[in-house]
Amino acid sequence: MNAQVKTFSTEGDYKIADISLADWGRKEIDIAEHEMPGLMSIRRKHAADAPLRGVRVTGSLHMTIQTAVLIETLKDIGADVRWASCNIFSTQDHAAAAIAATGTPVFAWKGETLEEYWDCTLDALSFPDGQGGFLGPQLVVDDGGDVTLLIHKGHELEQGDESWVNSASGSHEEQVIKNLLKRVARERPGYWTKVVADWKGVSEETTTGVHRLYQLADAGKLLVPAINVNDSVTKSKFDNLYGCRESLADGLKRALDVMLAGKVAVVCGYGDVGKGSAASLRAYGARVIVTEIDPICALQAAMEGYEVKTVEDTLGEADIYVTTTGNKDIIRVEHMTAMKDQAIVCNIGHFDNEIQVDALKALPGVEIVNIKPQVDKFVLPNGNAMFLLAEGRLVNLGCATGHPSFVMSNSFSNQTLAQIDLWAKKDEYDRKVYILPKKLDEEVARLHLEKIGVKLTKLTKEQADYIGVPVEGPFKPEHYRY
Amino acid sequence: MNAQVKTFSTEGDYKIADISLADWGRKEIDIAEHEMPGLMSIRRKHAADAPLRGVRVTGSLHMTIQTAVLIETLKDIGADVRWASCNIFSTQDHAAAAIAATGTPVFAWKGETLEEYWDCTLDALSFPDGQGGFLGPQLVVDDGGDVTLLIHKGHELEQGDESWVNSASGSHEEQVIKNLLKRVARERPGYWTKVVADWKGVSEETTTGVHRLYQLADAGKLLVPAINVNDSVTKSKFDNLYGCRESLADGLKRALDVMLAGKVAVVCGYGDVGKGSAASLRAYGARVIVTEIDPICALQAAMEGYEVKTVEDTLGEADIYVTTTGNKDIIRVEHMTAMKDQAIVCNIGHFDNEIQVDALKALPGVEIVNIKPQVDKFVLPNGNAMFLLAEGRLVNLGCATGHPSFVMSNSFSNQTLAQIDLWAKKDEYDRKVYILPKKLDEEVARLHLEKIGVKLTKLTKEQADYIGVPVEGPFKPEHYRY
Amino acid sequence: MNAQVKTFSTEGDYKIADISLADWGRKEIDIAEHEMPGLMSIRRKHAADAPLRGVRVTGSLHMTIQTAVLIETLKDIGADVRWASCNIFSTQDHAAAAIAATGTPVFAWKGETLEEYWDCTLDALSFPDGQGGFLGPQLVVDDGGDVTLLIHKGHELEQGDESWVNSASGSHEEQVIKNLLKRVARERPGYWTKVVADWKGVSEETTTGVHRLYQLADAGKLLVPAINVNDSVTKSKFDNLYGCRESLADGLKRALDVMLAGKVAVVCGYGDVGKGSAASLRAYGARVIVTEIDPICALQAAMEGYEVKTVEDTLGEADIYVTTTGNKDIIRVEHMTAMKDQAIVCNIGHFDNEIQVDALKALPGVEIVNIKPQVDKFVLPNGNAMFLLAEGRLVNLGCATGHPSFVMSNSFSNQTLAQIDLWAKKDEYDRKVYILPKKLDEEVARLHLEKIGVKLTKLTKEQADYIGVPVEGPFKPEHYRY
Amino acid sequence: MNAQVKTFSTEGDYKIADISLADWGRKEIDIAEHEMPGLMSIRRKHAADAPLRGVRVTGSLHMTIQTAVLIETLKDIGADVRWASCNIFSTQDHAAAAIAATGTPVFAWKGETLEEYWDCTLDALSFPDGQGGFLGPQLVVDDGGDVTLLIHKGHELEQGDESWVNSASGSHEEQVIKNLLKRVARERPGYWTKVVADWKGVSEETTTGVHRLYQLADAGKLLVPAINVNDSVTKSKFDNLYGCRESLADGLKRALDVMLAGKVAVVCGYGDVGKGSAASLRAYGARVIVTEIDPICALQAAMEGYEVKTVEDTLGEADIYVTTTGNKDIIRVEHMTAMKDQAIVCNIGHFDNEIQVDALKALPGVEIVNIKPQVDKFVLPNGNAMFLLAEGRLVNLGCATGHPSFVMSNSFSNQTLAQIDLWAKKDEYDRKVYILPKKLDEEVARLHLEKIGVKLTKLTKEQADYIGVPVEGPFKPEHYRY
Repeated sequence: MNAQVKTFSTEGDYKIADISLADWGRKEIDIAEHEMPGLMSIRRKHAADAPLRGVRVTGSLHMTIQTAVLIETLKDIGADVRWASCNIFSTQDHAAAAIAATGTPVFAWKGETLEEYWDCTLDALSFPDGQGGFLGPQLVVDDGGDVTLLIHKGHELEQGDESWVNSASGSHEEQVIKNLLKRVARERPGYWTKVVADWKGVSEETTTGVHRLYQLADAGKLLVPAINVNDSVTKSKFDNLYGCRESLADGLKRALDVMLAGKVAVVCGYGDVGKGSAASLRAYGARVIVTEIDPICALQAAMEGYEVKTVEDTLGEADIYVTTTGNKDIIRVEHMTAMKDQAIVCNIGHFDNEIQVDALKALPGVEIVNIKPQVDKFVLPNGNAMFLLAEGRLVNLGCATGHPSFVMSNSFSNQTLAQIDLWAKKDEYDRKVYILPKKLDEEVARLHLEKIGVKLTKLTKEQADYIGVPVEGPFKPEHYRY
Repeated sequence: MNAQVKTFSTEGDYKIADISLADWGRKEIDIAEHEMPGLMSIRRKHAADAPLRGVRVTGSLHMTIQTAVLIETLKDIGADVRWASCNIFSTQDHAAAAIAATGTPVFAWKGETLEEYWDCTLDALSFPDGQGGFLGPQLVVDDGGDVTLLIHKGHELEQGDESWVNSASGSHEEQVIKNLLKRVARERPGYWTKVVADWKGVSEETTTGVHRLYQLADAGKLLVPAINVNDSVTKSKFDNLYGCRESLADGLKRALDVMLAGKVAVVCGYGDVGKGSAASLRAYGARVIVTEIDPICALQAAMEGYEVKTVEDTLGEADIYVTTTGNKDIIRVEHMTAMKDQAIVCNIGHFDNEIQVDALKALPGVEIVNIKPQVDKFVLPNGNAMFLLAEGRLVNLGCATGHPSFVMSNSFSNQTLAQIDLWAKKDEYDRKVYILPKKLDEEVARLHLEKIGVKLTKLTKEQADYIGVPVEGPFKPEHYRY
Repeated sequence: MNAQVKTFSTEGDYKIADISLADWGRKEIDIAEHEMPGLMSIRRKHAADAPLRGVRVTGSLHMTIQTAVLIETLKDIGADVRWASCNIFSTQDHAAAAIAATGTPVFAWKGETLEEYWDCTLDALSFPDGQGGFLGPQLVVDDGGDVTLLIHKGHELEQGDESWVNSASGSHEEQVIKNLLKRVARERPGYWTKVVADWKGVSEETTTGVHRLYQLADAGKLLVPAINVNDSVTKSKFDNLYGCRESLADGLKRALDVMLAGKVAVVCGYGDVGKGSAASLRAYGARVIVTEIDPICALQAAMEGYEVKTVEDTLGEADIYVTTTGNKDIIRVEHMTAMKDQAIVCNIGHFDNEIQVDALKALPGVEIVNIKPQVDKFVLPNGNAMFLLAEGRLVNLGCATGHPSFVMSNSFSNQTLAQIDLWAKKDEYDRKVYILPKKLDEEVARLHLEKIGVKLTKLTKEQADYIGVPVEGPFKPEHYRY
Repeated sequence: MNAQVKTFSTEGDYKIADISLADWGRKEIDIAEHEMPGLMSIRRKHAADAPLRGVRVTGSLHMTIQTAVLIETLKDIGADVRWASCNIFSTQDHAAAAIAATGTPVFAWKGETLEEYWDCTLDALSFPDGQGGFLGPQLVVDDGGDVTLLIHKGHELEQGDESWVNSASGSHEEQVIKNLLKRVARERPGYWTKVVADWKGVSEETTTGVHRLYQLADAGKLLVPAINVNDSVTKSKFDNLYGCRESLADGLKRALDVMLAGKVAVVCGYGDVGKGSAASLRAYGARVIVTEIDPICALQAAMEGYEVKTVEDTLGEADIYVTTTGNKDIIRVEHMTAMKDQAIVCNIGHFDNEIQVDALKALPGVEIVNIKPQVDKFVLPNGNAMFLLAEGRLVNLGCATGHPSFVMSNSFSNQTLAQIDLWAKKDEYDRKVYILPKKLDEEVARLHLEKIGVKLTKLTKEQADYIGVPVEGPFKPEHYRY
């Protein structure tokens, strides 16, 4: 393990890379606070009433500077927080150090193994009960659904269903999870049942994680109320779109310093992440080709002047491939072996299985040369080189620092409001997936306007009546698409 | 009346400007058919089964070349059609002539008075019953809701509620409608009751018209099932956005040949119409300022680099004002009298009351110089000039020819599918507002891809299962925003 | 002849379409004056000293509203002006009427035949001497070099060289010119010699016309000093670039109302005109392909993300072709017969020979359907349709109204300053091609800044010394490219 | 000194940060070679004839990966090379290590003091003569003119003019240079005279350095022929424009991870560097304000929709300031103390004196907090924070890795061709500033087309004759601006 560990000690409780980075992390947190007016405003508003006073909150979300501001916001409004990252490469070690230095338990460093990663997730779930045992969280902040998965699978096992943990695994990671659950079963019998008893809700912010929640809810298996933060407008149309517009190129640049102008770039998927990615690459002077399965998104891409065709039709022509889909097997081995020499392949969608990394590594005759952390050159059997960034994981977080603070302030304000809402309505909500009311969505936007000098127009009463909305909003019907 | 009239004769039944324009209109309809693959595909698919066979359909929708292709599509699938425009300036006279020449009743010319306009609407509603009387439509294609309004108000009157027709009118147009209803009451007693008895549904395609439908439905006053075509993705995110991106500048150019580069343009409202308008103006090199009431839309504008402030704060700085809101009193008299000399003011939102035209005309000391049709120079009391386009009505339709065919093919394919759906389900649907199923929305997009060379990627079964959608779609949850 | 003629009468001296359009033209001239601050400023500055007092000036330049402001500027500073258009389709008839109505001789209407066109050019050259004969101009404002060509060829003939007028003609237009020269030789013996004796200079504003002047000068055949207005920065980098960025789409829209989003457009040539054209089409959502011969310009196009390939490689893929080259045979018959059905072909470069129009018309099996003025549908032998705009002449002037006033104010300010300069230095200048000094170029820009609210920064003396320029400019070395 | 030194030993001759970085540097050089087709093509073409065989070449140019490819190209065509960086922050230490590891003398590391910097420059100038003494270079590759300055000032001193070295210094750096010259005078009497005797030429690639050369030439003081590489089109219109378009944001992101969307950014200067900078910031969604002294450039900015005003008028409104001018005192102390809290200030123009860094540091009450290397927070007397990047030196090189390889291949191909040309014509050229012939400029572009898939159109003989150029080019007149 490449980390510094102080587990469950009185001096702190963390697994991080280097506590000496705390000062630097703190300086950057200070800067970020000025860029995150939504979170800071929530802190000010709720400092006194502390709506999460004493609530145990586990977070599983990229341990970055921005997340540090989120963590400290949750703490400022009363929560007892433990944190892990949700990605083995996304931690900013100085951010983790700064949080650890304040005494908040954090378990995350850049470059974890999968075993370490899931151990950290368990650490974040394990609140010492003061008697040598562990309590679980009352609320969960999730990104991608790993904590939710772990609890659900652990609970399922304790309910007597051993089929999954004993089934064959489709990936190494799946086996790691199963092994962990078996170990917990041995070491902490009945633990997950106790966790679920206390658990009151989860807020989730990714398309993929939300999709899993709806699947659980539809199957009647969801164990707690959930809030779909991803589909707040101020999340999906901001973080996914404007965040990626800034962070994709950042990842590419820090990884390879490559000239984007004149290159042919293929963006797989034209959802919000794809839209932001394509816009960014075009702005740099790349010629962007889009691939899509959905005719509506495909037509949108065409209306913006992008060529829309299949990955197969771009092989030999394109220099850069970016997956943005949330689906799997988008860039396959047969694609990668047919690409132009020096092609660059990366993922800004969700899991690393958007690219068939394992299969490529296993291909006979492939040679892998590590250029620097998160940048690997694959020399293919035909002699061509291909660069894979962040091992197929999120390129913006693996090769750069993720989305910038301002846009994350929107996402994390939604997360925070969702946590407050889940706790306040813990006795009302069903085991369903909720969306934050539009009024709150508009409020999140409003909190970010002043920082960038926006001056809103105010409806007169007569105008508001004419279009049938309250003067103070909400202004749009639920189905409005922005 | 500046029109040629052949009313209820065996040779035809129309009020149009000039039947000799029919050949030209037909040539342009031929061109448009190649740009409207969605409509042409529906024609081919339903030519044989004719799902609207014999159904009386009244249309109230800008009588343009594109609408001519819609009308002939409805006829090809069996309908008995009568048509009026929904705007006094939007008719393309050669389009109307070409339709009239085929024997389809049409009542529309460019430059109607308000009295003529509403008479035309009534004409479009009046299907001769062969015995000197009139039947109403079984289906209505509406744009802005004027036909729906007229039937509802007529029906209300015949139900004995005379309060509205006898109330004071807020505008000249309101009085025209009341006068018409009183006349119909005299000339065709019980007419509206008979119309309502046969009426099976309405499809509506504007934000404003749809809003009225929801209000009627919420109040329990909606008389028929309605389909909200506006909120099909392939309508609101295409026609409103990409249509305006093309037609706003077209209107400005044909009106005034003005250089847009270097100008300061204020776009009031940043919904889909505003987004398209702002994008277009910026692309020409104008510096665009956005005004907004909704913090989410305002933040979107800011994320695209637009300055967001109030109309008041732009006076003296801006050269061009475009309203896109669907609300009223956006550009007020006190704004117009404080604008920079030579300012240009126009509306691409909905009604002409977005700009206080009447109040400006009534202002003492204002002189109006007509430059050419739809272009007026107002010499203000302070000596400055201001140009008003299309008298405050839709500038793209008044000063140019509206949206181009390809994007209208999307909107009108939705309209046609909605008409088919309303008729097919006339015995199932309640008096509510429906939205077309996503499957049909995706189908409309799909029909337009081949024309522009888009090649879709196809999900494997495994991929489809992974994200939990059918291989053939629909691909997105209902709340997805595109 | 489709024109109203009052030749050499006391009431006026013109050949125009319709004098009753004068009022409308005047209203638009008034509007244009507010958009042409450069010209208006020159008027104010030189109204008193009238540097062209009594100087006979012939103009051959598109007779538009903007040109009307140029003409009246020349008159205000003293000149005796006669004018013809330089393109058979580019005249705005209301502009010509307004000028005619003031008593300034003008010979231009939209839709001249080539014979009429060259007769008009001769008319513009023929200043009555008060004794039944004609004097020539002392200065010429040229656009494309037709007046310069006519005088040079006439003079050559009178010098005894009959080889050209008796040679076989490569085009119909060439023969028209020869016929005209033979007629003048009969009717006005010695006329060109007399014209040349009085002629003091020409200013020319097109790339092509300037190229001809350099060729004449290099061959030692240039008869007068010439000023290359085209290569003023405020001309070539403004009119060519920003003008076309606005007027190309305008021409396409007025011609065919075509949706540009989603279309594939080929821009032949990536000089300033091509750069403006490509930018405009892309902004509308078209996918633009560029063709180039020059590797530098090709690399520029690639750096902006355009695909660069040959016309041949786009056939069957592209919807729109725009020539911008100043060269000939860019779009050839073999191209046009292999295009996608419904392709649109137009030219915004220079002469109509960029497209092989004559050869296409002569192709067996081609059918031509006129849709409306300047829009023809060619039904090709393979059954596909192709739309040709403005018969291959400048699409922005033939199908729309040319560049907007503001950008033309830059070009025409250069023209006016060139005329003043030519006259002032008529005794100094050699028979060479001159460029306006950078100081004047900067002055032209400066005259246009206030109108659009630009506020310049002023160098301190210390800063100016540091970079070695005067505080007031000029600021750049001659080779600077902007 | 924070460097590893092996001076004048048999094992090598270098001052670099860490020779163990050589492997990593070599891997990145390998990648860069694929992105620098121009340089690689020159290598292949001249490998056999080695036109610089045995020629001593001193380079003073940012010691980056791209420069490593340049150095190895010069070596491959025969040169004996010594190298220093031209900026204290711009060295990539792994690039320097890789070059050092091959035995090529290199003197550069990231974070030199000014004393170290000028010592390194002298090292790069000092070719051991094998007898304990030193020879100077025969050719110089310069960037910013520091080597040229040093030789000229040294020579001046040896000619007996001691006025400059004994004068008061306007900056610390000036004094460092004087001290160095005095030391050389003591240690190596007559050295500069010997250097000048052998020196045959210099090629220079920056606007500022070229400006100095013209000043020297105008004053009759230039000691050798010089080639202005900056004004090759493939340099100034590529590196300055497209390079900055990619590397400015890269620098900002790596420094501060700041969200650019929604920010107000002031770009001081709208030359090529400013154009690239403004385009990049706008593409990210920043609202860009431009400041300019030149009315032509100001009008260009306005035509692109940028607001143009003075720095003074942006204080309190703008978040980011970027200087691009090559002039000094652009951002002054009085500006910085009046900026919005959290403002970011950086320079991508030339010298650090574009921003009054020294004066700000000297301001009473200012506190400086170093965030990380090249990122400093200034806490101003009013309590606001301001971030200064790279201490006011080039932000793209100080905070990121400079321009990407592909665009530098253009610039460095020009450098290489200039070096070859200077040597080949060393007996023909005068002590003047030359520009590479357009034919070579076009050739540089041509060498880069294939890599990015560009397919050129080829003129027919007839077309070439029509426009009066050779079929193979050059295609444009010298004054053409691209």
